[in-house]
Amino acid sequence: MTDKTTIAFVGLGSMGLPMAKNLVKAGHSVRGFDMRREAMDALAAAGGERSADLAAACEEASVLILMVVNAAQARNVLIDAGALSALPAGTHVCLMATCPPDEVVALGAEVRTAGKVLVDCPVSGGVVGAKAGTLTIMVGAPKAAFDAVAPILRAMGDKLYHCGPEVGQGAVVKAINQLLCGVHLAAAGEALALGQKAGVDVATLLDIVSGSAASSWMLKDRGPRMLMDEPPVTSAVDIFVKDLGIALSAGRSSGMGLPLAAAAHQMFLAESGSGNGLADDSQVIAAYRRLNGIS
Amino acid sequence: MTDKTTIAFVGLGSMGLPMAKNLVKAGHSVRGFDMRREAMDALAAAGGERSADLAAACEEASVLILMVVNAAQARNVLIDAGALSALPAGTHVCLMATCPPDEVVALGAEVRTAGKVLVDCPVSGGVVGAKAGTLTIMVGAPKAAFDAVAPILRAMGDKLYHCGPEVGQGAVVKAINQLLCGVHLAAAGEALALGQKAGVDVATLLDIVSGSAASSWMLKDRGPRMLMDEPPVTSAVDIFVKDLGIALSAGRSSGMGLPLAAAAHQMFLAESGSGNGLADDSQVIAAYRRLNGIS
Repeated sequence: MTDKTTIAFVGLGSMGLPMAKNLVKAGHSVRGFDMRREAMDALAAAGGERSADLAAACEEASVLILMVVNAAQARNVLIDAGALSALPAGTHVCLMATCPPDEVVALGAEVRTAGKVLVDCPVSGGVVGAKAGTLTIMVGAPKAAFDAVAPILRAMGDKLYHCGPEVGQGAVVKAINQLLCGVHLAAAGEALALGQKAGVDVATLLDIVSGSAASSWMLKDRGPRMLMDEPPVTSAVDIFVKDLGIALSAGRSSGMGLPLAAAAHQMFLAESGSGNGLADDSQVIAAYRRLNGIS
Repeated sequence: MTDKTTIAFVGLGSMGLPMAKNLVKAGHSVRGFDMRREAMDALAAAGGERSADLAAACEEASVLILMVVNAAQARNVLIDAGALSALPAGTHVCLMATCPPDEVVALGAEVRTAGKVLVDCPVSGGVVGAKAGTLTIMVGAPKAAFDAVAPILRAMGDKLYHCGPEVGQGAVVKAINQLLCGVHLAAAGEALALGQKAGVDVATLLDIVSGSAASSWMLKDRGPRMLMDEPPVTSAVDIFVKDLGIALSAGRSSGMGLPLAAAAHQMFLAESGSGNGLADDSQVIAAYRRLNGIS
């Protein structure tokens, strides 16, 4: 699989399309499928192939990559839409979407029953990392499966980790990554809203905490947008409604109470429920402002 | 006050002693007072002066610096032990301990009534910053008082911020700084304990989240100690019981609910209440382990 591999790629969205293009650049034969025709056109223009339908994309593939929105879409593609039965025996199915670990485990069993191999390999790094081929890829899979797909994955990400030998362990690590991101983001909102309510200069406050032991990646990245009147949208509030939900689901599966993740999730839910689910995720601070009567 | 100033310095502990020494190095006449004789001996050996008693330290001072443990000690020194009445009229009193904002405001009024000027100026940066003279100093005081003591403060810290014109606003910023530190520390414990319970390789997990958008200063600094069996103590669990308590007190004074700070505080309280208040603060992870039956 280290040379030219035939890869079926399903889900050519803002992350998937640049990832598929990087596979083309690495010399692979990439057969894309997406519900949106213009996404397949864009892949074809970059040297990939447009598939007539999902079965056509899968029939001669050695690897299927799923970069769909969530676990329900992955199940739909594999089971309901027939990708699993169209794939040749022994094919590796790389599930790169962010999904609850228990759903990944369940899909893994169904893929195995069908004579194929699920590789649990979600990513982080966003659209920037997808375009640059610098994604972090967190793999849960037996060592043999990890080794088999590693050369393919390295065309999309430069930080490839084998998190454990079981399907679902990549999803757990991704869920924990998002737990930290979401809690840090809500904490930044809590801190800056308190500064505002207490009447201190919030720009000075942000400057101080960004340069001290109080700092986080999220505080430095999202903090300035929390202080803007109309911040640009880089990632939506609803993404953290979903991802902290997945973190809590990972906790439930493991029998683990997560008080901070639960509290942070409520603030994103409240912001989404106030009609701002598509706003920039920095606007979780607006939930704190409403909660505490800060105008 | 830019040249040689006579400074009374009360509280020569692990932070106060190196701060007082930096004032001596900057050319000031520093009269130290501490309940422990060996602390005064150490200051005298560095070129400062040992005071016979608190009144003697205060009588000819232009500035009094308080680097005591908490607001109760500050009140005790100023009011009960008589420092305020011993100081010359118009003296600046620099309160550098971490205190609840409302107690700083109350002390400010009493200092003003006594004809002196309280400068609210807590610090962050720890013993390392105290020794190197690189503390962050957060000042809440009228501009004239800030300007008057700034040259003195710069001998102890290289990041001097005027947070607002009112006494208590420095304390608010420090409380918010500690809110973020405490929440990030508890979040790191929550994340790594979940990884442990879910059976992933926690060293790999820590490596991944330390290098992604999930990262925080606290995660990178305390994370490795969370995975040690017997970590060295750099700062105790009880410090965050106190400091998150101050953050919650700042929220109460401002009429602001702080769900993440409250949840994090409970985890530090639980760890302290289990007999581990003097353990390294990274051991907040042990509260998560007990809570969730992780051995």
